Amino acid sequence: MTGTLVIAGLGPGNDALVTPEVTDALARATDVVGYIPYVARVAPRPGLQLHPSDNRVEIERSNHALEMAAAGRHVVVVSSGDPGVFAMAAAVFEALEAGPTAWRSIEITVLPGITAMLAAAARAGAPLGHDFCAINLSDNLKPWSLIERRLKAAVAGDFAMAFYNPRSKARPQGFETTLDILKSACADNRPVIFARAVSTAQEDIRVVPLQETQAEMADMRTMVIVGASNTRIIHRPDLPDIVYTPRSAETGGSV
Amino acid sequence: MTGTLVIAGLGPGNDALVTPEVTDALARATDVVGYIPYVARVAPRPGLQLHPSDNRVEIERSNHALEMAAAGRHVVVVSSGDPGVFAMAAAVFEALEAGPTAWRSIEITVLPGITAMLAAAARAGAPLGHDFCAINLSDNLKPWSLIERRLKAAVAGDFAMAFYNPRSKARPQGFETTLDILKSACADNRPVIFARAVSTAQEDIRVVPLQETQAEMADMRTMVIVGASNTRIIHRPDLPDIVYTPRSAETGGSV
Repeated sequence: MTGTLVIAGLGPGNDALVTPEVTDALARATDVVGYIPYVARVAPRPGLQLHPSDNRVEIERSNHALEMAAAGRHVVVVSSGDPGVFAMAAAVFEALEAGPTAWRSIEITVLPGITAMLAAAARAGAPLGHDFCAINLSDNLKPWSLIERRLKAAVAGDFAMAFYNPRSKARPQGFETTLDILKSACADNRPVIFARAVSTAQEDIRVVPLQETQAEMADMRTMVIVGASNTRIIHRPDLPDIVYTPRSAETGGSV
Repeated sequence: MTGTLVIAGLGPGNDALVTPEVTDALARATDVVGYIPYVARVAPRPGLQLHPSDNRVEIERSNHALEMAAAGRHVVVVSSGDPGVFAMAAAVFEALEAGPTAWRSIEITVLPGITAMLAAAARAGAPLGHDFCAINLSDNLKPWSLIERRLKAAVAGDFAMAFYNPRSKARPQGFETTLDILKSACADNRPVIFARAVSTAQEDIRVVPLQETQAEMADMRTMVIVGASNTRIIHRPDLPDIVYTPRSAETGGSV
């Protein structure tokens, strides 16, 4: 008997951003697996087993989910944001590829969610309204040299940029280096958005010109968005500024 | 009397991907503005005026929406996917910036949606599971030279890539050039995903090795996703292949 495995995105935090297909999958699940704060967002009910686990055990969690699905359970792995963007979907597929052949008969579905950069962009205006890159600034699973290579390529292409996991206590230096690279390559007034805890009660959105940015403005709950050379700011008398990247572009700013 | 303006993302096509906050905004609207097929997704009801308009009139549509909101109406501008990704939010802000100062007092909210690249990625597995770029291949509003500059930067950074608007009858050449650039720079077996009409009844997902890709495989309803150098394929006996980009990376593939 083979069960099913759904990898579902819960969005950035507010339940009004959870898609109906994710809500429906959770209503039909026998088991929900995920990082503790994400599983805590799922309401308990009879017939549903919750399996919260700690951070940094993504492969063990994935193996557990696949084992239960192979045994006939209907398992939902929950992720924050979109499961395919720096989240659980890749971890489950790594476990699937390394695991027993029988797991390859499990019906697996990925259900997209509102990823943090799009929720953050919406709060600020439309800073990702034109070509952009998404870069995970954590060097836990890749060398810092690759992050630098990608930052320099993003600058060379005059992309807007969205940074996930910009800074943690264990990695205080990387984001400072990132800002140094940008400051040496981009105009001083390039808008940088620090969007913390988007869509939650702790939400805080700041727009800071690049030359005034400091590494301490970001933590692990912050999404950082950097405009492209043509990104603009609209000032409004009694309302927050709007940051947007127009649909039209000339040849792109100098690198 | 000042009304409100909401710029809302309807997701890629299936109503199960519309967030509750967008459904709620539509329920409270007095006026819905947008491109004909998107407005057609909103159910008529007493007290709601629908204002469908043709393609390529984004600024006129935005002016109309802002005028109505300034006159006290509760207006929702609907976009496919996410309104902040190659969609209506940037157009509304262009119109706002160029328009009368009074418009800057209008309360404007952007509600994110499931953008096509994330819906397409979910269907294929997790090809955007690590650092990636999103590029609009239409040169209607930017010079082709800028698109080429960005493609080359994306290759140099070994990013996965998501291409919006890859090809239309009026622009048959650009996507062919794009594939030529990739074929000359990337490994022959780099996975390329052609995801057409994702989440609708016409959905069609194909995974093609780069050297076998042809420009005719894409049209305006196709989202194209190109893996990074470490993107992998999992073959399954009775189920579709899974394409995913692992969370770990070494120094990145050669350019």
